[in-house]
Order: sequence, then structure tokens, then C-alpha cells
Amino acid sequence: MALIVQKFGGTSVGSVERIQQVADKIKKFRERGDDIVVVVSAMSGETNRLIDLAKQITDGRPVPRELDVMVSTGEQVTIALLAMALIKRDVPAISYTGSQVRILTDSSHTKARILQIDDQRLRADLKAGRVVVVAGFQGVDEQGNITTLGRGGSDTTAVALAAALKADECQIYTDVDGVYTTDPRVVSRARRLEKITFEEMLEMASLGSKVLQIRSVEFAGKYNVPLRVLHSFKEGPGTLITIDDEEESMEQPIISGIAFNRDESKLTIRGVPDTPGVAFKILGPISAANIEVDMIVQNVAHDNTTDFTFTVNQVDYDNALRILEKTASEIGARVVHGDPSIAKVSIVGVGMRSHAGVASRMFEALAKEGINIQMISTSEIKVSVVIEEKYLELAVRALHTAFELDAPVSQEKN
Amino acid sequence: MALIVQKFGGTSVGSVERIQQVADKIKKFRERGDDIVVVVSAMSGETNRLIDLAKQITDGRPVPRELDVMVSTGEQVTIALLAMALIKRDVPAISYTGSQVRILTDSSHTKARILQIDDQRLRADLKAGRVVVVAGFQGVDEQGNITTLGRGGSDTTAVALAAALKADECQIYTDVDGVYTTDPRVVSRARRLEKITFEEMLEMASLGSKVLQIRSVEFAGKYNVPLRVLHSFKEGPGTLITIDDEEESMEQPIISGIAFNRDESKLTIRGVPDTPGVAFKILGPISAANIEVDMIVQNVAHDNTTDFTFTVNQVDYDNALRILEKTASEIGARVVHGDPSIAKVSIVGVGMRSHAGVASRMFEALAKEGINIQMISTSEIKVSVVIEEKYLELAVRALHTAFELDAPVSQEKN
Repeated sequence: MALIVQKFGGTSVGSVERIQQVADKIKKFRERGDDIVVVVSAMSGETNRLIDLAKQITDGRPVPRELDVMVSTGEQVTIALLAMALIKRDVPAISYTGSQVRILTDSSHTKARILQIDDQRLRADLKAGRVVVVAGFQGVDEQGNITTLGRGGSDTTAVALAAALKADECQIYTDVDGVYTTDPRVVSRARRLEKITFEEMLEMASLGSKVLQIRSVEFAGKYNVPLRVLHSFKEGPGTLITIDDEEESMEQPIISGIAFNRDESKLTIRGVPDTPGVAFKILGPISAANIEVDMIVQNVAHDNTTDFTFTVNQVDYDNALRILEKTASEIGARVVHGDPSIAKVSIVGVGMRSHAGVASRMFEALAKEGINIQMISTSEIKVSVVIEEKYLELAVRALHTAFELDAPVSQEKN
Repeated sequence: MALIVQKFGGTSVGSVERIQQVADKIKKFRERGDDIVVVVSAMSGETNRLIDLAKQITDGRPVPRELDVMVSTGEQVTIALLAMALIKRDVPAISYTGSQVRILTDSSHTKARILQIDDQRLRADLKAGRVVVVAGFQGVDEQGNITTLGRGGSDTTAVALAAALKADECQIYTDVDGVYTTDPRVVSRARRLEKITFEEMLEMASLGSKVLQIRSVEFAGKYNVPLRVLHSFKEGPGTLITIDDEEESMEQPIISGIAFNRDESKLTIRGVPDTPGVAFKILGPISAANIEVDMIVQNVAHDNTTDFTFTVNQVDYDNALRILEKTASEIGARVVHGDPSIAKVSIVGVGMRSHAGVASRMFEALAKEGINIQMISTSEIKVSVVIEEKYLELAVRALHTAFELDAPVSQEKN
């Protein structure tokens, strides 16, 4: 008998019919003899409806404490509906809000972090044969104020509960049937991965495969909670996200997947005097303006000056360019220029740790297609390149084939 | 500096615009220097929307515990919105759910009773200059389960908070500008009462003047909390509901108001053997069927039999008749008959305690209009009669004039 934490997102519980389907699914698990804790999000659209109300009342600037009081009602409705649906199916069930569990967080309203979970109440209910339905995305601080974990926080709630209860598996039900080698809309022969490591998943997620919230993957990795991504309403094993199992990794492919991001822009400042602290002088004003910087590349200096390039989200491009021009005149740099629209493509895989030549194989594949590489950045399990945006699909497909990720033709997806 | 508890119902907070108006109003009170605790209901329509969702999920039979988890979100949204609106007006404010306050109740889900209120947190906030916004209608039991007080329970929350805080006044804001001598839709010269006693208000409320929830008036009387009914968006003193002040009562009119109810029906069982326990034999099966009995009249026996008459709500008439016919054959009564549609009219006033002849003055006024009285029932501060339904308006107008309740013609209402 296993203890499983299951998380159903807003689309999976987006209507009365869907909640009934989720209840049917949970009943099947119970009948197999598993202990089940279910974490649910607000019905899709509800959180936005509540935030809109708050914005109307406050001309767009709601107080975070009160926003949390309000937004947390979205999940509170879903837990009650799902518990009712289970009880109607003769599955004993009970619902808990974040405060009731209690999921203790810090007091950073709208982006709180979980500090501790009291598992006593949950264990007593599981022992009594109940399915426990817990509101995702929310908690309570030391003073009893309601907090929320920020968007996508329901995944984090599920992983944190699984860690606290030492659950056998944490299952995240979504609208995709697993994690793919790359986006199937771009590469028709993309394959579902049976298994992927936490590290790979983190690289894939942060690079644009929006299946799981990054924080929840970090959390799962830290506490070694086996995570599984599955489709809410289709049968199938999904993708298991777990630790890097050394023995198995011999057989693993070098590369697990190809991630990409088309929302980036690139800024370069040339002729920067090569003195200590110059990187901070350039990036300090950018981050002070709340602009998130992704890739940063600085090459070795010559003639005592260097070139400094970084990428930011396209929406921040104009703002970043203005700041950078001001900085350039202050530090005596020669010229600033940029490209508001570039694409980043990355190959990700723990296998590259033990295989040399992975990067050059990537560059070769791109060269064959005549794609020029503008920037390169590497980490232990990832190589990212920046290319002209129009070559994005071509690059992803070429790399998918070059690293032998293509599904056999018979399994081709539409 | 007074401490005032104010309650705004669902219509008063039914839209973003209305909540802004309520916030403006509260800001004015604060500027006058009063300490304010505000109790709010769910936005109008919200509670019904939630109950409908619960019924859809469960084919009409939601589990009470889970229904409370769900329905309590309605007020939780309103407290946050109102607190935001106040803070936006530079009025320091903080919201609390029933659990947070904490309003301790028993565990009777959907109809819980308040056991105790912890006033420490509220007092600390008031001392810090904050307006405290509390969710009406809800509480928490000893085990931390969310409870609700049943429909209209927000009035009760307001009175209970006023009692716990020893507030100077509990103000109930509604869509009427006070308590009237009778329904102005029936009598155009009905007058707003400056003042009415708790006892009178209870008789008026239970007889059909649906301004306040009965429980909240009982509660206010028990703890001697001065209650005031006011219009949410019109200026005016409203009606003060308070204890019977002996010194002033000399000047009070004998009768405060005329209440009526047109939803009643009447059942009579004739030739009942006049033996001990027969009343229970007749009414036991009726109340076992969850039918509420209003008036009961039994006259002295002659020939060792008696007639027994009672009234029930019109929706229960058919069911009650069937039960009564069964009872009649069991106890050897002669005949059962009834009238599915009658009206009850009552005169209410603490003044009748010290004035003889009030009842006969009532009967005289009705006789003058040729209205036949079918049943009479009296209490210390009330005389009720049952008449044919078609005479209802005529009877109310005649009594309103006879007891000198009519407003001067110049003040006539439309």
C-alpha cells in the first residue's frame, strides 16, 4: 500500500463535470488500496476573476495581505467541492485549507515560502481511511494571517506535503501526458520521456518547457520526492522525475531534451574598460529596474577593453537599452547595440557530464544547416546558443535528430 | 469616542461600486473619531451561486461540513475587498475571517451557534487605530472546522461582536430606512419608528417584518446591545431597538406596530375526546413531519369533546391535512377540516401591558369593517387574529388608523 500525493491543477478541476471525473479517478486509486492526499488549485479562471475584483477596488494596487485573504478562497471552494464529490461516491474524504493543515509559511504575502507542515492531522485522517483534500497555493504565517505561495504554488504545496508525509510518489496531473524531448508542436517526432532527473527537469523548465513550476522541482529534488507528470484524463505512465541513478545512467542517452525560448532579446556594450567591478556597474542598474537577466557572456579582453553581452525578456528590451546607454556614457564604453528579437536553443542532459564532444556535435549540426551562432553559454548539463529567431524551428529539429531523440516514424505525433 | 459595530448586508456590498460607497461611509465615521468594527455578508448572489455549485456536485445533498468550507468563502472575499477599499482611502484597516477572530461556535454545520468570541486581537487592532473588518455568518469549532451560522447569520455575528466588545451601538445597514409601524406597501401612511423595544421587535420580526434576523434581536436583548436599523445609502437616524425604558414608556403609544402574515393556512379537528394528552397526540405527528405550527387554539370542552385548531405555513397544508385525518381516526375525533389560505394580523406593543381594553378596541375596529374573526391568540405584548385572506389589507389599514399610527398626511409615503 503506497502513500501518494496527487495534484490537480485549475483546468483539471475547471468545471463540475471535471471535478466529478477527478473524483472517479481518485476512487479507483483508493480501491487499489493506496492512501491518497489530493492537492487542488482554484477552478480555472477563478483566481483571475478575484484578482480583477481586487484591482477594480484599488485602481490596480491591492494590499498584499488582503489580496491573499481573497485569492485563497479560490482553492477553498475547490477542496469542498471535491470532498463532496468523493463522499457522494462513498469515499470518506475531508477538506483542509492551508491554515487548517497547517502549512506554516513566512509572511511574504503573495509569494510566501513554506517553513513547516504539521502532518499529524493528515496522518490521523489517512489512518481513519479518509482521502485528504488540501488547498494548494496557500498557507498561514505565525500570526495566523493567510498567505499565498504565488502563481503555480499548488505544485509546491503538493511536493511539500509529499516530503512531510514521506510519500512514495507525488503525482502532478496536467493537460499533457508527460515531459517531452522537445515541444511536439515544433518537432512532430518528439518523444515522451519515461524518466528525467531533477536537474534536467530544472534546466528544461527554466528554458521554457512549462510543465512544472521550477520551485516545486527544486523542492522535490532537495527532499528527494519522486515526482510524476501525468495527464488528468488520459491513461498512461507519464514521466517520472527522480534523482540521477548512476547505474542506469550508462544506458541513458547523452541528451534528454531540447529546450528553447523565443521571448528573448540581446544587448551588447562594446569597448568596456576592462577594470574590476565593471560587470556590476553594467548589470546593477538593470536589476535595480527589476529586469531579469538570463544569459551573460563576456569574452577575454584585448586592448584593455572588452565586450559584454546579455539577454533579457523581449518586453524589457526598450527599458534595458535606455539604462545601458546611460551606463555606457558613465563608464566610458564605446557603443551599445542590441537585437530586440533573438531565440535561445539549449540541449539538456546529465549524460553530457561523462561524454566529451557534446558541444561540438551541437555546433556541427547547426553549421550543417547554415545557422550562425551569436552567443554560447554552458553549464554542467546544458549548452545554450543564441541564434537568429527565424532559424529557431530548424535548429530544434536538427538538434533533435542529431542527438537521436526522434521517435520511430510509426510513433509520430500529429 | 464611541465604539460602534456596523453590519452591511449582501445588497449593500453587492458590487465594487457599492463597496466603495460603504468605504466612504466608514471613513466619515472614523473622521468623527469613532472606533469601528465592520461585519459584512457575501456579495449578493454569491452564497446562492456557491450553494448551486455544491448541489450540482452532489445531486442536491452536499455534506454540511464541506458546504460550510465553501459557502464561507463568500464573506471572505468581501472582507478583503472592503479592507482594500479602506486602505486605499488611507483608513488603516484589517480583515478577519470567523476562524481568525476567533468566533468559536458549536459544531452544528450550516446552523452553528456562537459560544465565545476572543476580543483580544480586535481590541489590539482598534487600539492601533485600525478599522476591523470581520466576515459575518461564520465561525470555527473547537477542532478548527469552519462553521456557518445559517442564513441571515451576519446580523448575529454583528450583535455577538458588539456584546463581546461592549460596543456603544450595533448598527445594521439594510435597504430600508428603519422599522415601520406596518408595511408601507399596504398602508401608505405607515410611519418609521424612532424606537422600539427588543420584545416588540421580536414579535414584529416573527410575524413577518423581515428587517432583522430574529436570532440577532434575541441575542441583542439578552446582552442589552442597542441595535439600530439604518439605510445603507440614505442619511437618517433609522430605528433604535433597545430595552423597555420604564420612564419613557408613559409617553409611548400603546401599540407600536401592526404585523401580518399571508402565508398561513388553518386546520381544525372537531369532536376531540377531552382527555389528558390529546393535544400531544394531535401535534406530535405534525412536528415529527417537520411541520412548524404557529398559532394553536383550543377552547373549553362541552359534552366531553373539544375543537382544536392550529395554523401552519401554506406549503405544509396538504401534508398536515393528511396527517391530521389519520390522527382523527386514531383518537376518535369527529371531523377534520381546514382552510388552505388565511391571513393573520397582529397588533404589537409593550404599551398594552399597562392599558386595558386594547384587544376589544382591535375587535371593534375589525367589526366596523365587517371583518369576521376566525381565531384569536394573545401574548403579553401582542394580540393576533386570523381572518379571511381577502380582508388582509383592509384590516391592517383599519387597525393602523384605530391605534393612531397614521403619519400626518403631509408625511405620506408613496
